[in-house]
Amino acid sequence: MSNHLLQGKKGIIFGALDENSIAWKVAEIAHEQGATFVLTNAPVAMRMGEIQKLAEKTGAQIVPADATSIEDLENLFKTAVDTLGGPLDFVLHSIGMSVNVRKGKHYTDLNYDWLAKGWDVSAVSFHKVMQTAWKLDAMNEWGSILALSYIAAQRTFPDYNDMADNKAYLESIARSFGYHWGVKKNVRVNTISQSPTRTTAGSGVKGFDGFIDYAERMSPLGNATAEDCANYVITLFSDLTRKVTMQNLYHDGGFSNIGISDLAMEKFSQE
Amino acid sequence: MSNHLLQGKKGIIFGALDENSIAWKVAEIAHEQGATFVLTNAPVAMRMGEIQKLAEKTGAQIVPADATSIEDLENLFKTAVDTLGGPLDFVLHSIGMSVNVRKGKHYTDLNYDWLAKGWDVSAVSFHKVMQTAWKLDAMNEWGSILALSYIAAQRTFPDYNDMADNKAYLESIARSFGYHWGVKKNVRVNTISQSPTRTTAGSGVKGFDGFIDYAERMSPLGNATAEDCANYVITLFSDLTRKVTMQNLYHDGGFSNIGISDLAMEKFSQE
Amino acid sequence: MSNHLLQGKKGIIFGALDENSIAWKVAEIAHEQGATFVLTNAPVAMRMGEIQKLAEKTGAQIVPADATSIEDLENLFKTAVDTLGGPLDFVLHSIGMSVNVRKGKHYTDLNYDWLAKGWDVSAVSFHKVMQTAWKLDAMNEWGSILALSYIAAQRTFPDYNDMADNKAYLESIARSFGYHWGVKKNVRVNTISQSPTRTTAGSGVKGFDGFIDYAERMSPLGNATAEDCANYVITLFSDLTRKVTMQNLYHDGGFSNIGISDLAMEKFSQE
Amino acid sequence: MSNHLLQGKKGIIFGALDENSIAWKVAEIAHEQGATFVLTNAPVAMRMGEIQKLAEKTGAQIVPADATSIEDLENLFKTAVDTLGGPLDFVLHSIGMSVNVRKGKHYTDLNYDWLAKGWDVSAVSFHKVMQTAWKLDAMNEWGSILALSYIAAQRTFPDYNDMADNKAYLESIARSFGYHWGVKKNVRVNTISQSPTRTTAGSGVKGFDGFIDYAERMSPLGNATAEDCANYVITLFSDLTRKVTMQNLYHDGGFSNIGISDLAMEKFSQE
Repeated sequence: MSNHLLQGKKGIIFGALDENSIAWKVAEIAHEQGATFVLTNAPVAMRMGEIQKLAEKTGAQIVPADATSIEDLENLFKTAVDTLGGPLDFVLHSIGMSVNVRKGKHYTDLNYDWLAKGWDVSAVSFHKVMQTAWKLDAMNEWGSILALSYIAAQRTFPDYNDMADNKAYLESIARSFGYHWGVKKNVRVNTISQSPTRTTAGSGVKGFDGFIDYAERMSPLGNATAEDCANYVITLFSDLTRKVTMQNLYHDGGFSNIGISDLAMEKFSQE
Repeated sequence: MSNHLLQGKKGIIFGALDENSIAWKVAEIAHEQGATFVLTNAPVAMRMGEIQKLAEKTGAQIVPADATSIEDLENLFKTAVDTLGGPLDFVLHSIGMSVNVRKGKHYTDLNYDWLAKGWDVSAVSFHKVMQTAWKLDAMNEWGSILALSYIAAQRTFPDYNDMADNKAYLESIARSFGYHWGVKKNVRVNTISQSPTRTTAGSGVKGFDGFIDYAERMSPLGNATAEDCANYVITLFSDLTRKVTMQNLYHDGGFSNIGISDLAMEKFSQE
Repeated sequence: MSNHLLQGKKGIIFGALDENSIAWKVAEIAHEQGATFVLTNAPVAMRMGEIQKLAEKTGAQIVPADATSIEDLENLFKTAVDTLGGPLDFVLHSIGMSVNVRKGKHYTDLNYDWLAKGWDVSAVSFHKVMQTAWKLDAMNEWGSILALSYIAAQRTFPDYNDMADNKAYLESIARSFGYHWGVKKNVRVNTISQSPTRTTAGSGVKGFDGFIDYAERMSPLGNATAEDCANYVITLFSDLTRKVTMQNLYHDGGFSNIGISDLAMEKFSQE
Repeated sequence: MSNHLLQGKKGIIFGALDENSIAWKVAEIAHEQGATFVLTNAPVAMRMGEIQKLAEKTGAQIVPADATSIEDLENLFKTAVDTLGGPLDFVLHSIGMSVNVRKGKHYTDLNYDWLAKGWDVSAVSFHKVMQTAWKLDAMNEWGSILALSYIAAQRTFPDYNDMADNKAYLESIARSFGYHWGVKKNVRVNTISQSPTRTTAGSGVKGFDGFIDYAERMSPLGNATAEDCANYVITLFSDLTRKVTMQNLYHDGGFSNIGISDLAMEKFSQE
């Protein structure tokens, strides 16, 4: 297959934690397709050391940044534009965390300080990223900005807890800011609503294995993997999808439009 | 028409500011239909003095409460249950405010402290209301909890600014908490996505008259008024809608499913 | 509770087959709420004899009509307007049938003559009903027209077969014709997307018991029954919902917005 | 940019009428990207002679087929598989026609024979295409089947008339058949909901210029052109989007998620 889909394109990839991360796979494939980029993650995630391997493999610079800090984001975008030699063509936001989920608080017993923290990290950070890029005029015409979401934004999965509300907010930001980016710079903004994915981050959610198995049986094509997702991201960063914007795009093997599959019903109906 | 649809039902109505408020109309009609209730609003809104008239007219007690304060909400629910003589059958959440909108900050130049404040008031308050009621076991079986929303949660109206994202979060809370309320107590939780309405609060949004006129022309039945909305709320509090839950219900004269109306196109096409 | 919600209102109710029918329950409750109406069904269904009991109980006249025949529909509407003493306030369309389902044809092996027959009966009949009423000017201002649908219009349930596509077409007719009715006569048109319901008609679908059980476990409030649905229909025929139009309204105990419930996951995860 | 995205892939492209057609652009770009394919259109459209030029340019064979005729479709698929040397990887369905639109019949005065004809051509043909391919086992694993749709399937544009209902049915077929294709062969089925496009076919719709202008102003990126659409189609035929199925994908410059744009409001508000 082709290997120049992102030739000459420059970007920032948030959220590559380890080789299970969707962002990690995106970096690998974007590199193969000719892109250059900066890798970033929260300083705390940085310490895990894995990302250095990815940087070497893809010729990327690493710029730590807390995505809730405007100061860090300004530094990140300035450094990226300097390092890469001009404004950016793509940004991937793959960030999410709920303190309430981590601490096992039930949705009917949320801690509101933790709620605010998770909202800031998981959702507002996407606005901060775009507002920073906007003010620094750091995006090229016809650029593409993406964030990763999950269908819990539309339908309730009890264990997903307050992350559901964060994802709904995140998707709304994509629409709201997508309007302004489109009008000003022909930049598109979308979210991908991805199958449950066995990443290191995803594994933190209670009952996650149940999710995965259920979704696998419900989806006619099975769950989309991290690598599948990375391939899809590449198309959305390429010039072939320039008029797709303000969308939440289901990348889930069909899960979102299944009422019940035969395979799930079979399991469900067993004695 | 009937006047006993809410006979014997008890509730709390948030957000009656003055006689233009949707919540005000709900209180009037709920009273006619046999309900008893407590009226509440933020202490700052209380000072406006109007609400006392409504309380007298409807035989309601007023309990001021900042809907972002758990302490205030606990006092409110305890007082309501005591005053009304038992757990509640309905709650109306009609609260929304964006500091960024008030201060004229553009969506690409948001102040994040103001963002957090508006999010807390407009969206998280709905979770706080329900979590407080949950912990105090203050709802009766088959009760009904409602919040008011706007279609900006799904589609971008640039002047609506960060309220769009707040409404998306609010609607997600309705689904997320609606699941738990349903399973535990057969209580339903929904949002009404109402036409733009000429209330005192609504008028704060820039370009609001343009909205109203555009929506009026686009909607085959015209915009739904505050009184129309109050009538609809009554049906959703009544026992006739017990199995409707986790929904966002468009009450908008058809606006939400119009691509373009002849009347709007006529205006749009004029030279 | 109130018993005058439909006082003085006149209508036509299609599809009352026997006492398990949703239309049957609607007739009973509409009668209690003060409405007068004509009952109609296909001549073939008429022979079953049950409907005469309902007519006696509700003081309704029966007018047989094949809902795919313009001639029959013209006769029906003229008779109804004559008998009831003026134009109508409500119409309930509760009609659906797939020959492919009945004959056990798989969705990948459809008979196209049967497809056309089922489409005409299940979906086009709704257009024919409205076009006939339109041409005869047989609806009053602020009237309400309803059809019953199912979530298979949005999500795939394999056993529902070509009825899924029929329901999608039916819901589209509600929007398309709803626009014109709204503009011309302030008449509203909606569909109710109802839980799977154990009616005589519904039972024809293969794997129906599995559907019912699955939906029951997925829905926080359990499945909506035929009687629940009839109550909801009454609100949509009443004057309290005048500005709701062109909507597909989920009446399903929350099913439509559930990703997975704890109860379903429990069954799904058992060994 | 890359030029091997469809290297070695084989397919059928329906609906290339002249160089304004989306299908025409798809053929041109698919050829550049390494695909081989058969071009097909209704015999009546064939006579227009243009398609021969496209066939020469892209090295394609032309096989006339009435897409409502199973016999023609069987011949088409057999010939394609023979000519191209094996089962297919992609199919594009770009077919639509309403006799009621052509003859200027209003939606409230439809001719039902014409309705059935338009439904068969515009929507059922998609099922027939897939059922024929299914029975002949003419698709490869991980193949991609696409049809073109329009947002009138979700929202009412009065001039679009009964084509709205046809598109709703078409999109439902994509979901219904997409389930079976996914389970059996990992083949994906989607629809693209494209901006109004100035094709020879599109021009037949009354008020079409108004549509185009309105949509252009409403869409932050402007309307997607036929060539934009062809580029997007290529990504959906490529191996990079293997897990996207049963979706209706908006390719419209953002139109679908806009409430009102500043540019449209400006035109709308002028005196």
